[in-house]
Amino acid sequence: MRSRVLLFVAAAAALGWLMIPDTLQADEGMWLFNNPPRAQLKKYNFDPEPKWLDHVRLASVRFNSGGSGSFVSPHGLVMTNHHVAADDLQKVSTPQNNYLKDGFHAKTLQDEIPCKGLELNVLIDIKDVTAEVEKAVPPGTNPAEAFRLRQAKIAELEKAVANPEKNIRADVVTLYAGGQYHLYTFKKYTDIRIVFAPEKQAAFFGGDPDNFEYPRYCLDVAFFRVYENGQPINSEHYLKWSAAGCQEGDLVFVSGHPGRTNRANTVAELKYLRDTGYPYLLQRLNRLEVLLGAWVARSERNAQRGEDELFGIQNSRKARMGGLAGLMDPKLMGRKEKDEERLRNYIVGLQRVGTALPPWHADAMNAFDVIAKAEKVRAEIIKEYALLEGAGGFNSASFGIARTLLRAADELPKPNGERLREFTDARLSSLKFSLLSDEPIYEDLEILKLTDGLQFTAITMGYDSEFVKKILAGKSPRERAYELISGTKVRDPKVRERLWNAIEAAAKNGQTYDLKALNDPMIELARWVDGPARAVRKRQENEVDEPKRQAYAALAKAKFAMDGDAVYPDATFTLRLAFGTVQGYTEDGVAIPAFTTLGGIYKRSAEQGNKGPFELPPRWKARQDKIDPQTPFNFVCTADIIGGNSGSPVLNRQAEVVGLIFDGNIHSLVLDFIYDQDLARAISVDSRAIIEALRKIYDANDLADEITGRKK
Amino acid sequence: MRSRVLLFVAAAAALGWLMIPDTLQADEGMWLFNNPPRAQLKKYNFDPEPKWLDHVRLASVRFNSGGSGSFVSPHGLVMTNHHVAADDLQKVSTPQNNYLKDGFHAKTLQDEIPCKGLELNVLIDIKDVTAEVEKAVPPGTNPAEAFRLRQAKIAELEKAVANPEKNIRADVVTLYAGGQYHLYTFKKYTDIRIVFAPEKQAAFFGGDPDNFEYPRYCLDVAFFRVYENGQPINSEHYLKWSAAGCQEGDLVFVSGHPGRTNRANTVAELKYLRDTGYPYLLQRLNRLEVLLGAWVARSERNAQRGEDELFGIQNSRKARMGGLAGLMDPKLMGRKEKDEERLRNYIVGLQRVGTALPPWHADAMNAFDVIAKAEKVRAEIIKEYALLEGAGGFNSASFGIARTLLRAADELPKPNGERLREFTDARLSSLKFSLLSDEPIYEDLEILKLTDGLQFTAITMGYDSEFVKKILAGKSPRERAYELISGTKVRDPKVRERLWNAIEAAAKNGQTYDLKALNDPMIELARWVDGPARAVRKRQENEVDEPKRQAYAALAKAKFAMDGDAVYPDATFTLRLAFGTVQGYTEDGVAIPAFTTLGGIYKRSAEQGNKGPFELPPRWKARQDKIDPQTPFNFVCTADIIGGNSGSPVLNRQAEVVGLIFDGNIHSLVLDFIYDQDLARAISVDSRAIIEALRKIYDANDLADEITGRKK
Repeated sequence: MRSRVLLFVAAAAALGWLMIPDTLQADEGMWLFNNPPRAQLKKYNFDPEPKWLDHVRLASVRFNSGGSGSFVSPHGLVMTNHHVAADDLQKVSTPQNNYLKDGFHAKTLQDEIPCKGLELNVLIDIKDVTAEVEKAVPPGTNPAEAFRLRQAKIAELEKAVANPEKNIRADVVTLYAGGQYHLYTFKKYTDIRIVFAPEKQAAFFGGDPDNFEYPRYCLDVAFFRVYENGQPINSEHYLKWSAAGCQEGDLVFVSGHPGRTNRANTVAELKYLRDTGYPYLLQRLNRLEVLLGAWVARSERNAQRGEDELFGIQNSRKARMGGLAGLMDPKLMGRKEKDEERLRNYIVGLQRVGTALPPWHADAMNAFDVIAKAEKVRAEIIKEYALLEGAGGFNSASFGIARTLLRAADELPKPNGERLREFTDARLSSLKFSLLSDEPIYEDLEILKLTDGLQFTAITMGYDSEFVKKILAGKSPRERAYELISGTKVRDPKVRERLWNAIEAAAKNGQTYDLKALNDPMIELARWVDGPARAVRKRQENEVDEPKRQAYAALAKAKFAMDGDAVYPDATFTLRLAFGTVQGYTEDGVAIPAFTTLGGIYKRSAEQGNKGPFELPPRWKARQDKIDPQTPFNFVCTADIIGGNSGSPVLNRQAEVVGLIFDGNIHSLVLDFIYDQDLARAISVDSRAIIEALRKIYDANDLADEITGRKK
Repeated sequence: MRSRVLLFVAAAAALGWLMIPDTLQADEGMWLFNNPPRAQLKKYNFDPEPKWLDHVRLASVRFNSGGSGSFVSPHGLVMTNHHVAADDLQKVSTPQNNYLKDGFHAKTLQDEIPCKGLELNVLIDIKDVTAEVEKAVPPGTNPAEAFRLRQAKIAELEKAVANPEKNIRADVVTLYAGGQYHLYTFKKYTDIRIVFAPEKQAAFFGGDPDNFEYPRYCLDVAFFRVYENGQPINSEHYLKWSAAGCQEGDLVFVSGHPGRTNRANTVAELKYLRDTGYPYLLQRLNRLEVLLGAWVARSERNAQRGEDELFGIQNSRKARMGGLAGLMDPKLMGRKEKDEERLRNYIVGLQRVGTALPPWHADAMNAFDVIAKAEKVRAEIIKEYALLEGAGGFNSASFGIARTLLRAADELPKPNGERLREFTDARLSSLKFSLLSDEPIYEDLEILKLTDGLQFTAITMGYDSEFVKKILAGKSPRERAYELISGTKVRDPKVRERLWNAIEAAAKNGQTYDLKALNDPMIELARWVDGPARAVRKRQENEVDEPKRQAYAALAKAKFAMDGDAVYPDATFTLRLAFGTVQGYTEDGVAIPAFTTLGGIYKRSAEQGNKGPFELPPRWKARQDKIDPQTPFNFVCTADIIGGNSGSPVLNRQAEVVGLIFDGNIHSLVLDFIYDQDLARAISVDSRAIIEALRKIYDANDLADEITGRKK
């Protein structure tokens, strides 16, 4: 493959195209550690040595729950965000001790609390195995056989390196959508203990109103310690703490695990998202936010039960609003159009080069049209899909459970390969786990949401349509929701378990368990919905997802042929190196400075009446006189990050910690599709604020000493 | 007209139709005082004597600012709602004394504060002048001439009775859409002084979360005193205070001024509202509520500036949600269908009676189709209309001002009869008043709203459409909004005044003032929008409003011919008598009791953390031990009310005050279209809570004594 790439790149060069695309912005990219952005870093007069790269890589930690972190002491101390730690803090909390809300500080090793089910990974080796994977698939092999051979080779490569006894894990990572395959070897840790977390109010100061905004004032930090054999590990590669911190204009690095980007999206797909997908989703989110917001405001009890769901909706709404604003920015869209033009020209131009055309060429030639056509279908069916298959029209946990049971009875007797994806053997245990979870479901909230869902169904499909008439059964949405929710038995976990077992048992004998006999109104509703839901899902899979998958694969190959690894691959929740400058920005003519200060949180809280999401934790109020209000608190930089980077360390040229990534500003929400250096910013906690807070607010001098190297 | 009605009613009876429609529900109706619901009250064994009716009428007061009230002492003391008094409280507040927020209590007559511009009316006489008005228009007169003759007759009738010197005002009121004309004579009062108001937090306890909800805990009451010649008037007809209050099941009366109902709406119009109008409006309201809600939550300063607008949006949203829920209730819609069927049969049946057909018959035959067709057009153009002519796509005060100036320059030089409605001579002074108002306009809020409006325009009209391209001028919605708002001069009231004067001066010379020379970006935007906006407005007026006006007029005549005054006319903001029983209701299987208690407000406040809209005023906290927690606070009854009834007294059989209307529950929001006895309820403050609060919380024994007759 490699040689073929070189060939086409040479051909492209012969035609006068640039080998390194000029479409990359200065600080753009989530780069591979084995292919760092040396060309881009030249303007900073920085050339990362292999030792520097190895050290940073080995000090970086992946949270398999979905986040990043780093070793910050030789004794296995790991730093990440409070919001990355939130799940773990919740799991170890008790009715007496709400560590998520009130924070936690282990004064001694003995006080550190073991997490439940948390796994951390450290990337100890990277090997390019592209040639070996490619060699395993002889030219001309049909796709199914090619897939099998490739998977077999990958399994073989992984197995040769993995060593479960020594907690060595190996994954072959697919990069550039198949342009390269790298074998990643990880050291895996599973005895992780909680060392320190501030109060949620300090970590998430400003709540939803300030989420994705800047200036910010959040101490979004938490510390864990990694143990092996009952002892803290010796973390030889750990990041030293910068004494000076960073200043505006400084070059900084971010080492972390960006989860997923869609920068290969064609303009047709972006226009679909801009004109149909995002507006539709936002309309639905607005509706739900108003519905839940009004319900939550009605009582404290409602608030306790609905706040998390409401926050999730608000978070999605902000993310989509930011994304939509970017999609409506002609500057960003213009860059995407230019990129696409360049790729189109490259693909078309290959025909003129005169060499043999690569096997993906025909597909790549059609790819833009195939994607555009698929997006048209997607726009046509989005409402029905979201309503029926997405179950937005029956918005309730009860409906979800009823449908899972109904479909399980239909699907499990089928051969594995013919089942709906989520009912295949590989996914069955996680499906069952979530189905049988005894997470509380609140009847009144269910009625509220289902009423809204049914009303939404009536508006979308037409109140007088046969489908809606059947669904509403001659009642108003509210009456019908009440009847369904109060009448169904599926909210009882015991009933669910009994039914699941009966369905599984019947399936083993090749039979479909008869749920109809139950006469459960919600299961019967799910049955009425299931025909049209499966039909629209089929259209989505056959006319949208599959053609797009093939078209994008061809485009990825073309792109890799064009640029090789002079560009970075889309994010894959594996370790990447980003870089940028500490830098403010200008919004509506107003200059937003790069830094905030600890004093600023008191000012903002006071301005907001010290209430709601702006209420300071008692310790912060009590210690106000002790801290230096000038201490830098949060700062922004231009580094290219995305979800998954939460908890990534921000480093200076000496690979010393100067900050901790925890969010992006509202303009960064376009980074899913396109990097933007003008307005998009990553937001970090300043390392100096962490030390100041640990010492002056939390009396955690032991921890501050360990981090800063005063305690060895 | 009367004889003709009798004729048709007799014919209808001959054909077997009922003379009194059985479609009325037991407690339905907003009845005329000169045609009370005697038949309906029979089941309560109550037959209101003329003396009873006269007394209640003469004790009832209309607030011309839009509300109801009543005399509750012989010394001109008037009771109404705090929210009816809000405007007046605000107007007399000073930077030192915020009477709207903190309440007010005049200990002596000298302390009572005169209101600014408040007018109260008492209906002192009603005369049926239908025959005289009808006689003035000879049969066969063309519509324009008929209109002129009728208006002339009405003016003559009014002039004969009115006596400005004695503050006697006379209005001919059109009832049954022209079926009857009644001459109402009012005594007008303009020296009104504020006596007492509680804190807004007590009056509007629960804020938006509890608005339109039940159970409730609101002391939504205020007292004024009516003066003439510098002395409190002698209000001979005043309502006595009931010592016992009311109990569940009691018959009660509501005497007040319902503003407007649309109960004549055809099923086609209701379906338009259900399927298109309300869903579209709600989508827009949801979007604005989320936008403003997030902005208001960002800072106290934002909250102060945006809270009122946000509350207005939330209030509309709740009202529409309640209305939509009703429109989706097949029971209610079924009753509307039955009513319509009955009217259709009547109209068609007249052809078979064999007598000469009435002049409106042909129009009535077509009316249902004409309305259905108009509603189709309405559905077709609603988005464009709301966006362009409704200016939802350019949502900002700045755009509104710019467009008014632009249109004034175009319209004022035209002859009066050819101008857009709002620019006709009769409306010009109020247009100018609002244009030149120096109410503050906030630049950042303007940018926020306009950005959202432009984004909404792009989504609705298509981002790639020529119109949107022109409007956005190659920029993102946010950049464009910033450019427009920061670039326009129209927010300066002096600029507005200068331009208005120049426009008026030019118009007097028959010339159009040249605004183009200003090169103001917002005025130029308004110019681009104006062509399509005027085009869609023309369609709305010509294809929707005008045909509907004619069709509904014909239907109203048919209806009056069918039922005469055996049914009540749609609301007209004139005095009506409603009745009903004090009665709880059942929602989702939960019984909601009719009464709440004073103790309940403390419980609810505590449950809600005593914060935000649930924070009790300091006096309420301090006096908790003094009050009897069992005192009934708010209660619900089945009386038929609508906006305008706010402040209406609730009376027992002896015409004694037992309560004070202040709201309807969420189910009452369908009363615009249809009365509902199952779930719709009027919400009142209990008279006993008013006395308890006056004595125990506000130390207002003087006022309590005056109301209860202890002080003479």
